[in-house]
Amino acid sequence: MFKKLLIIGCGLIGSSVLRGSINKKISKKIFVYEKSKKNISKIKKINSKIIILKKLDKKISDIDIVVISTPMSQYERIIPSLNKFLGKKSVITDVGSTKQNVLNLKNKKLNKSLVWISSHPISGSEVSGPEYGTKSLFLNKWCIVLNHKNKNKLKKIIKLWKRLGSKVIIMDPKSHDEIFSLTSHLPHLIAYNLIKTAQDFQRKQKKNIIKFSAGGLRDFSRIAASNEIMWRDIFFSNKKNMIKAIDMFIRNLKSFKKNIKNFENRNLIKKLKNSKKVRQQIIDLKQDIAKPDFGRE
Amino acid sequence: MFKKLLIIGCGLIGSSVLRGSINKKISKKIFVYEKSKKNISKIKKINSKIIILKKLDKKISDIDIVVISTPMSQYERIIPSLNKFLGKKSVITDVGSTKQNVLNLKNKKLNKSLVWISSHPISGSEVSGPEYGTKSLFLNKWCIVLNHKNKNKLKKIIKLWKRLGSKVIIMDPKSHDEIFSLTSHLPHLIAYNLIKTAQDFQRKQKKNIIKFSAGGLRDFSRIAASNEIMWRDIFFSNKKNMIKAIDMFIRNLKSFKKNIKNFENRNLIKKLKNSKKVRQQIIDLKQDIAKPDFGRE
Repeated sequence: MFKKLLIIGCGLIGSSVLRGSINKKISKKIFVYEKSKKNISKIKKINSKIIILKKLDKKISDIDIVVISTPMSQYERIIPSLNKFLGKKSVITDVGSTKQNVLNLKNKKLNKSLVWISSHPISGSEVSGPEYGTKSLFLNKWCIVLNHKNKNKLKKIIKLWKRLGSKVIIMDPKSHDEIFSLTSHLPHLIAYNLIKTAQDFQRKQKKNIIKFSAGGLRDFSRIAASNEIMWRDIFFSNKKNMIKAIDMFIRNLKSFKKNIKNFENRNLIKKLKNSKKVRQQIIDLKQDIAKPDFGRE
Repeated sequence: MFKKLLIIGCGLIGSSVLRGSINKKISKKIFVYEKSKKNISKIKKINSKIIILKKLDKKISDIDIVVISTPMSQYERIIPSLNKFLGKKSVITDVGSTKQNVLNLKNKKLNKSLVWISSHPISGSEVSGPEYGTKSLFLNKWCIVLNHKNKNKLKKIIKLWKRLGSKVIIMDPKSHDEIFSLTSHLPHLIAYNLIKTAQDFQRKQKKNIIKFSAGGLRDFSRIAASNEIMWRDIFFSNKKNMIKAIDMFIRNLKSFKKNIKNFENRNLIKKLKNSKKVRQQIIDLKQDIAKPDFGRE
């Protein structure tokens, strides 16, 4: 059990760390720093023992772990406070969806005496805010942790995520940002743009098409409803990989368009069949439920 | 109640028409014609009163409604049989996902004495085969029906879908094919290509990325697992609209890429916020469930 845990930014992810930590008795005391007054009143209802910090200025001795779960664009403003009030004993982690930018920022701005070991729990959803957090959000989900030479503190971060139910995997920041540009960032970017394309069409054609979205569009609308600040930060932070991924995707689209244009039956069927295989792999890897249509009614 | 209903092709949709018709006592007798022997044995188990036809050759008098629910590429082969064995009393419908091609084919090949009124129930899923059909597949779902000058027979088709639980809407084939190119066909095409892009990356980088698909990719894999014959037929049949839709989409992607490249914060946030609105519209229109993450666990 840790003595003191501090959560900075308490939305969906932060409040899930909070709830999970209370549930698993991960820390004796839990401090929360959260800017939004509306969120604070929601957080207070979770548990009466949570200690809300009004500012990040006074020194709190012996904090074991700091979890930063604000949008990534806030990190730069938070680091000066960390430099002031944290002692050497603490270890900092964050839950940002890109890692090279966090590493660069840390190297530039964080006191050399402090240790920041970056994490990425793969467990978001289209909703945001502390009211949506759950104690089991991380259960059986991957959590990526970046390697660090301070093995004791690395152990602490791994322990935190494992206690919260995650399957932890150590990764280097470059691989992380490449992999998630394909498995998460590109899908979100595509979803946003597909919805925009449908909106453009609806406006131009003056036809109400959204009401017929059950044929496929509705799935994309869920992902495209994700938090805009979080996703702006991700797209900007992972710029280089995003541009590569978009270009790869456009090349595939153009080739598919050509297949349709020229009625290239064999090519098209081959592509459709190949893509189909991935669904079963994902289900076998327990990355999704096995029910048709996600079990929706 | 109808006297005789004939279902040609009995997969997910056909077997759902079958189950719904049995459940709602829509027809005194139900005939099924299905090529696949494996499927026939599954269909026989649904209800012992179903009459399986081995061939579409002998004249069956007084069939009220024929529902064609084979892949669209089969229609051309089926029409000569319809010309032979159907009488004037019957009305034919189909459940194909594009309508202009069906109309053209019908005008070219079907006996002028026969009436074909095309339908499109918006109720597919990634699974196919009669074992997945349900009696309530069409419940509260849209069913598009093309207009027809024979109002008595049009009424029959509308009645069939309403009895099965659908909300029927009359549409012209041009509008249908345009609208569904955006709400259904483009989303499927995008999903197939996104999965392909992830596969390409995985092969080139020799990294197992599919296991991290919970961050977004998994949603697309469901749609990309849809039946390849059905979707090949749709993409080819709606070629003109698909090419337009792909081009619109690529234009949006390129503009989004530019926003990222140049850190155009205001433009990007505006786009993300706008796309977000559609989710609530879709939920309000009862086109999807209101639970975060589709209620998946």
